[in-house]
Amino acid sequence: MRRTKNKKAIILLSGGIDSATALYLAKNKGFKPLALIFDYGQRHKKEVDCAKKIADSTGSAYRVMKLNLPHKGSSLLDKKARLPGKRSFEEIKQKGIPSTYVPGRNLIFLSIAASFAESVKAEAIFIGAHTEDYSGYPDCREVFLKDFKRAVNSGTKSGKNIRIYAPLINKSKKEIVKIGQRLKVPFEYTWSCYKGGKLPCGVCDSCIFRKKAFKELGLADPAR
Amino acid sequence: MRRTKNKKAIILLSGGIDSATALYLAKNKGFKPLALIFDYGQRHKKEVDCAKKIADSTGSAYRVMKLNLPHKGSSLLDKKARLPGKRSFEEIKQKGIPSTYVPGRNLIFLSIAASFAESVKAEAIFIGAHTEDYSGYPDCREVFLKDFKRAVNSGTKSGKNIRIYAPLINKSKKEIVKIGQRLKVPFEYTWSCYKGGKLPCGVCDSCIFRKKAFKELGLADPAR
Repeated sequence: MRRTKNKKAIILLSGGIDSATALYLAKNKGFKPLALIFDYGQRHKKEVDCAKKIADSTGSAYRVMKLNLPHKGSSLLDKKARLPGKRSFEEIKQKGIPSTYVPGRNLIFLSIAASFAESVKAEAIFIGAHTEDYSGYPDCREVFLKDFKRAVNSGTKSGKNIRIYAPLINKSKKEIVKIGQRLKVPFEYTWSCYKGGKLPCGVCDSCIFRKKAFKELGLADPAR
Repeated sequence: MRRTKNKKAIILLSGGIDSATALYLAKNKGFKPLALIFDYGQRHKKEVDCAKKIADSTGSAYRVMKLNLPHKGSSLLDKKARLPGKRSFEEIKQKGIPSTYVPGRNLIFLSIAASFAESVKAEAIFIGAHTEDYSGYPDCREVFLKDFKRAVNSGTKSGKNIRIYAPLINKSKKEIVKIGQRLKVPFEYTWSCYKGGKLPCGVCDSCIFRKKAFKELGLADPAR
């Protein structure tokens, strides 16, 4: 990735570790980040406030976009649905697409990011997606990002000039935490737990991944 | 297109002639349509009410989805911007992408439609896009729809089973009006004018296309 001074980049910022690290990477590469935060009915809506704090920590502008998705059937959107119970890292990896899957989430988020990028003449979009941990989400795979980029090229006026960066795509959560630590990402502001309670539940898939990464690095999680 | 009894189809319904005709085509083919209507800050917001009436005329369910796009720079979204002045059909065709272009509009609309389709197990998405008239909009071209479909295939769980129909893609407005007439599309409910005033302005690009089509067919426009 070449260094780019003051070129705008749209960052998909969820409030979790991955997108926060993607934001810091963009900043570190000299981009002027514009964070795009989605309030899409997620049960852990508190990640929206975390995302704002993370954007603020880099002095980046942000926009919160509300989406009333006409959805049902995802346990991440439906508080009455059951989240997957406690399972080990290996169990999660074996089980395939989890019930927390939101149909076409990154397709929608990236589409809006591409549109936003074109509108403000940003040259890049950053997404913190990675395949290593969440092998279950199809829209976190490199093949999807490539196909999506092609649709941006043919379906927009100037999309050919917009690059999509997924700098963490082949990293594990452990490696991401390591990169984030180096870049001084304020992990204390990040939120991962799907339940969105006062404290992380410690048992949902997302908590399991996070705990494992910090443990393997011998680090205390400052958000706990 | 095979006849399909009671298979759900998501229809992108704007309130104009093209999408209304696409809805009637879907219905005619035996699909159970679910209309998706976007209230995205368009200056001709009155098309939203038109779309509802059109959906009602087929007895189809609909959802209106509000989008606060983080946009600027399109004369279709910004009431202070100037719409293109009166120009002939030929002039419009020569000029390329008009100022009414909304960055990535169909990319966003189709992404949400794909996500909705997956969520309610719909097997099809209908879009009234056509290249003949609006040669200026990149997201109305077949090449884009093909690229988009590929992104749906790789980026969703069951998107491979969702077909995207653009039955009017190679039709002219005149041909579309003819098809609509045959299907008894209630043109009196449709709205095309970008200005969204009490009556169609008669001079914006969209009015010019519409007038030309009705004139060539020797028909009176019931919406006037």
